[in-house]
Amino acid sequence: MRILGIDPGIAIVGFGFIDKQGSKCTPVQYGCIQTEAHTPEEERLLHVYEAMVQLIDKYKPDAVALEKLFFNRNVTTAMSVGQARGVLVLAAVQKGLPVSEYTPMQVKQAIVGYGKAEKRQVQEMTRMYLKLQKIPKPDDVADALAVAICHAHSYTLNSKLNEVLRS
Amino acid sequence: MRILGIDPGIAIVGFGFIDKQGSKCTPVQYGCIQTEAHTPEEERLLHVYEAMVQLIDKYKPDAVALEKLFFNRNVTTAMSVGQARGVLVLAAVQKGLPVSEYTPMQVKQAIVGYGKAEKRQVQEMTRMYLKLQKIPKPDDVADALAVAICHAHSYTLNSKLNEVLRS
Repeated sequence: MRILGIDPGIAIVGFGFIDKQGSKCTPVQYGCIQTEAHTPEEERLLHVYEAMVQLIDKYKPDAVALEKLFFNRNVTTAMSVGQARGVLVLAAVQKGLPVSEYTPMQVKQAIVGYGKAEKRQVQEMTRMYLKLQKIPKPDDVADALAVAICHAHSYTLNSKLNEVLRS
Repeated sequence: MRILGIDPGIAIVGFGFIDKQGSKCTPVQYGCIQTEAHTPEEERLLHVYEAMVQLIDKYKPDAVALEKLFFNRNVTTAMSVGQARGVLVLAAVQKGLPVSEYTPMQVKQAIVGYGKAEKRQVQEMTRMYLKLQKIPKPDDVADALAVAICHAHSYTLNSKLNEVLRS
């Protein structure tokens, strides 16, 4: 099963494709989509959308996982990230892919086993899970891989739960 | 010149197509796209996007105008409306349409001539401009028509300004 994790944004969208076999996860491809700051917003959205469509076409994931974002302060940022998120979710749902969302706390819990873990701990555990030499940069890429692993774990847990419930 | 005004949202998207000939504006079609509250968010986004693509294909506007939204309180709402806005802007930009944004104050100024006009005044002036029997309902439709008229006015002003600057 191939999972695409996405860390949405308008300037940088982190993405990470991982393959889940049993309880093992291996990285397939990861990186980020970037848009120019001085470009009109609508062109940035179009670029984000088209780049994501190409990635999905190329790496053919079975499921998509996104971080559920919270903003306490900046409503303008929330609106802007929301717009990018909208076109990213659209790219996934147009291909018929199931979309799951996880809160930052769920991601931390899944990766470190502790919902209030620090960002650096999550990144280090992500690196170890995927047997990477270095923590991927920028942070958006590491975050995208983390949410993909979180989905892999939840998927395993849910499958096991269903087995227990069925037996 | 045909203008599409949009009032973005996830539950209701107001839209209004108007034709601008000289300083006159006539309504072409208006209404709203609605999504079911208990449907997954990604399906609602897909529905909003596909409905807007169909409307653009059918009524072939030359330009799109949206209200620039401000949220003082609810960041979750901002994120949700932002997502809908993202797919709406995408539908327009994919067709090569220019997208313009106006603040609520700009819309009020353009329609009533006073940036702090009340909602009801804006709706009543919108009705009169377009020679409609009644104020369109729900409010989202009236708001969409108002932002379309606002764009028509700005367009006229900008054209005149350019003429003056060129002469």
